[in-house]
Amino acid sequence: MLTVIRLGRDDAAVLVEGARQAAVDLGIPMSIAVTDESGHLIMFEQMDGAKVSSIATAIDKAFTGAAARKGTHIYNQLCVPGEPTFGIHNTNGGRFSVIGGGLPVVVDDQVVGGIGISSGTAGEDLEVAQAAVNHFMKFHADRG
Amino acid sequence: MLTVIRLGRDDAAVLVEGARQAAVDLGIPMSIAVTDESGHLIMFEQMDGAKVSSIATAIDKAFTGAAARKGTHIYNQLCVPGEPTFGIHNTNGGRFSVIGGGLPVVVDDQVVGGIGISSGTAGEDLEVAQAAVNHFMKFHADRG
Amino acid sequence: MLTVIRLGRDDAAVLVEGARQAAVDLGIPMSIAVTDESGHLIMFEQMDGAKVSSIATAIDKAFTGAAARKGTHIYNQLCVPGEPTFGIHNTNGGRFSVIGGGLPVVVDDQVVGGIGISSGTAGEDLEVAQAAVNHFMKFHADRG
Amino acid sequence: MLTVIRLGRDDAAVLVEGARQAAVDLGIPMSIAVTDESGHLIMFEQMDGAKVSSIATAIDKAFTGAAARKGTHIYNQLCVPGEPTFGIHNTNGGRFSVIGGGLPVVVDDQVVGGIGISSGTAGEDLEVAQAAVNHFMKFHADRG
Repeated sequence: MLTVIRLGRDDAAVLVEGARQAAVDLGIPMSIAVTDESGHLIMFEQMDGAKVSSIATAIDKAFTGAAARKGTHIYNQLCVPGEPTFGIHNTNGGRFSVIGGGLPVVVDDQVVGGIGISSGTAGEDLEVAQAAVNHFMKFHADRG
Repeated sequence: MLTVIRLGRDDAAVLVEGARQAAVDLGIPMSIAVTDESGHLIMFEQMDGAKVSSIATAIDKAFTGAAARKGTHIYNQLCVPGEPTFGIHNTNGGRFSVIGGGLPVVVDDQVVGGIGISSGTAGEDLEVAQAAVNHFMKFHADRG
Repeated sequence: MLTVIRLGRDDAAVLVEGARQAAVDLGIPMSIAVTDESGHLIMFEQMDGAKVSSIATAIDKAFTGAAARKGTHIYNQLCVPGEPTFGIHNTNGGRFSVIGGGLPVVVDDQVVGGIGISSGTAGEDLEVAQAAVNHFMKFHADRG
Repeated sequence: MLTVIRLGRDDAAVLVEGARQAAVDLGIPMSIAVTDESGHLIMFEQMDGAKVSSIATAIDKAFTGAAARKGTHIYNQLCVPGEPTFGIHNTNGGRFSVIGGGLPVVVDDQVVGGIGISSGTAGEDLEVAQAAVNHFMKFHADRG
């Protein structure tokens, strides 16, 4: 038997709070998705004004961050024609995101979930995702 | 009528065993999939710690190795924009993998199945897939 | 943070072994699938002679046993037109199985995975799935 | 290793010929599909005037006849709400047909392929599929 730690509801709420604050600071309403370590959605928030097409994208980014355990922006650089990992964006029923803004959430060297942000540029989405993770890590550290 | 030879359950187990050993040697837990010559899944094993996103990828690589009868790394080099084969990764409902780690299994010059490995880099995945095929060929030769 | 226990590779192998023995006793080659508690495939075996159409069905039954935490035969009786749960077979992209032969695997009152069996009648599939779970529980109890 | 016999191109042509003759006799232009024993399409003919929506249906019926090894009309009677096999029409990505007109093709007690007919009523489709199989079996017997 394996023992796994994963984000719970309250952890997800901290991540969403961190993402929302960063999105407000940036002035871009975002789609915000959080998954557990298996890639299943555990929290989602569509900020007023976020794009409809970003709902699915944010969920896919969070899935990829958790399930593939790397930032989606890293896969963006790997998924270039002629490079060995090209085509990975087609896997998992097309849900594997290679657009920046998806990150794994790591606690004690274990991936415990994923966060995905969408509605801005890939760079803005990544900035907000990273801010959410930083907010979560600080909260987590403060609680010991 | 056509007569076809294909991997059975025991053959698949030898391939999975060979892949597992190579993955352990490499220190990377892998998703391991084996299909028959028609591309249908006949055995799958998720090593403890392999990536969730690699489950579907390994199955697709094995499908492609069997069904297209080439290593998926070969298609990787063919599937480049501007080249005649670009777009093949979109075929078969997106299941056609162009990421290294999928190989046909060939006996007596006939493709009898496919193996697909995922969780490492494309190069590591190919290395483990090739080790599995070598293990199977040695086992097959030893049995006469 | 949540702590979760789930089936690992060796646990899945015990379930597959139990299923295979029961299938041999029954004289029906079966498709055998095991998922972790999140519904992700961790082991699959196609016994020689099992049906091609049972590959996906077994995987879906195991997914449902784990993810919905009930035997698929229970949903069969609930998924009748006019009853409140009718339509559940269409959910999760059609992967929610309401055909007997899928069971949750429960340890210490927690669902730790799912098993799905297909190729016989729904009753035969359930019989084999239950035998696999019994085999696993005995193995688990013996190990303390 | 397993040895399998399956329909080849010339066998499929005999099945299509038998189906076409029966369809002409019945006065209904039909979609005619033949798969190998793994459920993969090996021949298809759209008679002039056959329905567009029957192309996919005929292919799915042939897939089911081969892959599930029973006539699709038999599954029609099993796939009734409250019965244990209800829901099977949702499996295999919705490709599992429970509408009469799909049959396995059996030689020497082995399923070697499937045939699927569509554009008439389920009863007419089954009649044409059965005529095709009869034509094939007679042809096969004559050739010894």
